[in-house]
Amino acid sequence: MLNSQEATPLYQKLRDILRKQVEDGRYLPDHAIPSERDLCQQYQISRITVRQAIAEMINEGILYRKQGKGTFVARRKVNQGLSRIVTFSRTVMDIGMKPSTRILFHGLLPAGLEVASILKLPDAGQVLKMVLLGQGDDHPLVVYESYFPPRVGKKMLKEATTREKQGLPFSSYDLYGRNTGLYPARVSQTLEAVAADNLQARMLEVPKATALLRVTSIFTTRDHSPLELRRALYRGDYYKFNVVRDLA
Amino acid sequence: MLNSQEATPLYQKLRDILRKQVEDGRYLPDHAIPSERDLCQQYQISRITVRQAIAEMINEGILYRKQGKGTFVARRKVNQGLSRIVTFSRTVMDIGMKPSTRILFHGLLPAGLEVASILKLPDAGQVLKMVLLGQGDDHPLVVYESYFPPRVGKKMLKEATTREKQGLPFSSYDLYGRNTGLYPARVSQTLEAVAADNLQARMLEVPKATALLRVTSIFTTRDHSPLELRRALYRGDYYKFNVVRDLA
Repeated sequence: MLNSQEATPLYQKLRDILRKQVEDGRYLPDHAIPSERDLCQQYQISRITVRQAIAEMINEGILYRKQGKGTFVARRKVNQGLSRIVTFSRTVMDIGMKPSTRILFHGLLPAGLEVASILKLPDAGQVLKMVLLGQGDDHPLVVYESYFPPRVGKKMLKEATTREKQGLPFSSYDLYGRNTGLYPARVSQTLEAVAADNLQARMLEVPKATALLRVTSIFTTRDHSPLELRRALYRGDYYKFNVVRDLA
Repeated sequence: MLNSQEATPLYQKLRDILRKQVEDGRYLPDHAIPSERDLCQQYQISRITVRQAIAEMINEGILYRKQGKGTFVARRKVNQGLSRIVTFSRTVMDIGMKPSTRILFHGLLPAGLEVASILKLPDAGQVLKMVLLGQGDDHPLVVYESYFPPRVGKKMLKEATTREKQGLPFSSYDLYGRNTGLYPARVSQTLEAVAADNLQARMLEVPKATALLRVTSIFTTRDHSPLELRRALYRGDYYKFNVVRDLA
C-alpha cells in the first residue's frame, strides 16, 4: 500500500515502482503490465492515481497502450551515438538483449561502377562483398552490407569467420584493429529513412515497407585510402541514433 | 554523334552529357529522359553503350527506372549536415526548390509531464507550442513541432509571425539570433525512422506509413537552460543527414 502522507505525489511513487520493475525485467518488452484495477487493489490507491502514473510512463516511452488490449512494456531502442562508436555487442546488451552475428553472404564480385569509384578500384576490378546479420536474442536487428577492396576484404572476412566460429557478436566495424592490422581514421556517414523492399523485409523479418534507418558509411585510412563502403539497414523499431553538439 | 576515338569510353561521355542536362534542369525530377532508342539515334551509339550510361546513373541515384514506363530523373535529397547547421532556406534551395514556411499552429497549452520535465517547467505549467510546415515549391517537406517555455516561445512566435508575413522561409532554428535575443549553445539530437501516422501523413501529403525521419532536438543555452524541444518529421524521400568524423 502506498502512503500519501509524504512529499512525493502518489502517482510518482507508483511510477517509480513500476519503472523499477520494468528495469529489473519483472515485466518484459511487449508483455502486459497488471490492469488498472489490479494496481488499484494491490497498492490501495485510486484509479486516477494509477492512470496518471501510467500516462506518464507512456509519455516517457516506457509503456504503450493497445486499444482494448491493455498496457504493455515498450521495447527499448538501441541508442547509438554518432559521435563515438560503441561495439555492436555493447549497444545490443544495453537494451537487455543477447547479441549475435551471422555471416549471410561473402564473395568476390565485379565491383560495379559506383562501388569501384567510391573504393577507388580500377575499372572492371573486383570487390569483396560481405553481408552480416546483427541479432538480439536471435531476432534480426540490422543488416550490414559491406564492400571492401579485395586485399582489405580478405583480412576482414578471415577475422569475421573466426569470430563467427567462436560465437562472438560483431559488426564490420568491430573487425578493425590489431587482428586485421586495419585502422580506419575517418568515416563519412549518411542517414536516411527508407521503406523495406522485399529482400530487406525478409532478412529483417518485418512487413514490407516497414520504416528502416539506412546508414551509408565510407571508412578511410589516415592517408585517405578507402577501406570499406557499408550500407547498414537498422530496424526503425529497434534503433535510434543520437548526437550532441555545440552550436555557434 | 559521339566519337569513340578518344580515351574516355563512350558510355562515360554519354553519362556526362546526360548528367549535365539533368543539372541544367533540361530534364526535371520525376520526368522521363529520352528512350534508349532515341538516345542511340541521337548520339549514333549502340544500345549497349546507352544502357551502360543509364545503369551507372541509376547506381549514382541520378535516375530511376519504373518497370514498363521508362527512365526518370530522381529527386535530389536535401543533404543536411549534422555537424553544422545550415538554414532551412539554403538546404531547400540547394536541391533547386523554392523554400517557404507556414505556421500551422501556435498556442499556450498545459505542458504535460514529459515536455515539462525536459523544459524544466513547473508542474502543471504552460508551454508554447508552435508547428511549422517547411515546403519546397509549395510541397510539404518537413513538419517542425516545437515546445518552448512561454517566455522564450513568445519571442520565437513573434519573429515567426513577422517572417511569415514577409514571405520569408524559416525553420524554428533560424529564429534564434539577434531578433529574438535568444542564442542556443548546445543541441542534443536523436534520429529515428518512423512510419507516418494519419495526421503526419496528411500534413506531409504522403500515404500513411511512409518512412519518415524523426529528429528530436533539445536546444539549451550556455548555462544549460532549456530553450526548445523540437520534434521534426522529414519526408524520407526528400531528406538525408550526413556526418563526417574522425575515429580513434
